[in-house]
Amino acid sequence: MFAYIHREIVPVEKAFLHVSDLSIQRGYGIFDFFKIQDGHPYFLDDYLDRFYNSASSMQLEVPHQRDELKNIIYSLIRKNNIAASGIKMILTGGYSADGYQPAEPNLIITQHNLTLPGEDQIKKGVKIITHEFVRDFASAKTINYSTGIWLINKVKESQAVDVLYHKHGIVSEFPRCNFFIVRNDNTVVTPAHHVLRGITRKNILRLASLKYKVEEGVVTLDDIASAKEAFLTSTTKRIVPVVKVNDTVIGDGKPGAVSFSLLDDLIALENEDYKLNAR
Amino acid sequence: MFAYIHREIVPVEKAFLHVSDLSIQRGYGIFDFFKIQDGHPYFLDDYLDRFYNSASSMQLEVPHQRDELKNIIYSLIRKNNIAASGIKMILTGGYSADGYQPAEPNLIITQHNLTLPGEDQIKKGVKIITHEFVRDFASAKTINYSTGIWLINKVKESQAVDVLYHKHGIVSEFPRCNFFIVRNDNTVVTPAHHVLRGITRKNILRLASLKYKVEEGVVTLDDIASAKEAFLTSTTKRIVPVVKVNDTVIGDGKPGAVSFSLLDDLIALENEDYKLNAR
Repeated sequence: MFAYIHREIVPVEKAFLHVSDLSIQRGYGIFDFFKIQDGHPYFLDDYLDRFYNSASSMQLEVPHQRDELKNIIYSLIRKNNIAASGIKMILTGGYSADGYQPAEPNLIITQHNLTLPGEDQIKKGVKIITHEFVRDFASAKTINYSTGIWLINKVKESQAVDVLYHKHGIVSEFPRCNFFIVRNDNTVVTPAHHVLRGITRKNILRLASLKYKVEEGVVTLDDIASAKEAFLTSTTKRIVPVVKVNDTVIGDGKPGAVSFSLLDDLIALENEDYKLNAR
Repeated sequence: MFAYIHREIVPVEKAFLHVSDLSIQRGYGIFDFFKIQDGHPYFLDDYLDRFYNSASSMQLEVPHQRDELKNIIYSLIRKNNIAASGIKMILTGGYSADGYQPAEPNLIITQHNLTLPGEDQIKKGVKIITHEFVRDFASAKTINYSTGIWLINKVKESQAVDVLYHKHGIVSEFPRCNFFIVRNDNTVVTPAHHVLRGITRKNILRLASLKYKVEEGVVTLDDIASAKEAFLTSTTKRIVPVVKVNDTVIGDGKPGAVSFSLLDDLIALENEDYKLNAR
């Protein structure tokens, strides 16, 4: 597997950063991640928009213009030649002279084999737990995941698959996924505030609006308890139905028709993007 | 200059981490920093206590027992042989297989030339600004400084030297320093909650208690406005008087007698530690 670092493509085994990098010194950096199928990165422009926005929010300059960056991405994809994969771009605060002041950012692009959610998770739905927390700079995709990683063992011990953040009972997001509920009248609702605006979240909102009433607004823990369906969304997971939150069973405890219908629509949208945009 | 990494001492120019390290992937790690004079690390046991505690809080295992770690530190100090310096120990989440799960932690120890605060800052005092924020895992010295670094430019533009965090007007700490006020009756007060328990903070509390009334409690922005003196403390800065917070002048706008007296006491305590414990 090859990676892009220090302005060249090298075997990933040789992709190193000096310890003065501000990601190592101060956890300072942003990133993004998108899916590839047979050489085609899905919804690439959406992910690049977000990457440049995260960089700008955190006062980091991406060392390449968009077209140049796209060329690097396509070169890496061709060189690695993996059918189903993901690409991660990390932009750090650079090699800091004093371990605090940002310097010229380092850009690292790596490609990874893709782990999709198991059939079983989609068919039966999953359990999640909740935790009181709000991310700093929630609208930027920073590399700060201390709380999410610190909670890994708690999630496992609870036999859950993920942890949903809330503040005073108002829900926001998972460490790496967005959250939706479906009300009894089939309205599809997702938290509007303190969330990373996921590309899958955006696609689901658009697809859902073609069939259902849609709301970006406030979702409380009480709203979840009285919801008909719930699901999480992410680039790699697409849609995974949530059937249990802590000890509360959602709806009838099984994945619902709206979740499955939107998953079908999302897969169709991916296929359409592939047909229209694959080089 | 030499550094310790991957269990050996190497020139710092050769100290690299692979990009799979969880500090680069997810900003996951802890660190600590202490001062050296002529081969003697001041208050080393206090700093090691905190380092092991931070690691344990963040579910990371330090790959060395305390005596072993001390031997490594002293070897590095002898090898570098710098009169006045600082040592930084960083412990990261390790080379993660999937960019999320922690692995065997990486320990990096680097030594740095020391920059003490200028005479002028101590004589005239400094201006600080405030910002609404509370650190996650405030009692652990994690590498997450996104907010502090993001605010660097705002601090500079305000012609201030640092930024004091508060939440709803209740003050906690600076990104890298603790904060004290001196009330009109000479009581020395420092925030008790949501702060990293600085070693200099601890020393100042002890020294102050020999002469003055001392409180670890709640400090509000209003308390600062009516304080007689204010100062910040840190390992490298010792005590720096604060004479202006945003546009509010503290006391008579000059550093006060209590601040200077405690600075003298701290320097005396450092000298005593040197005499008693230097190898």
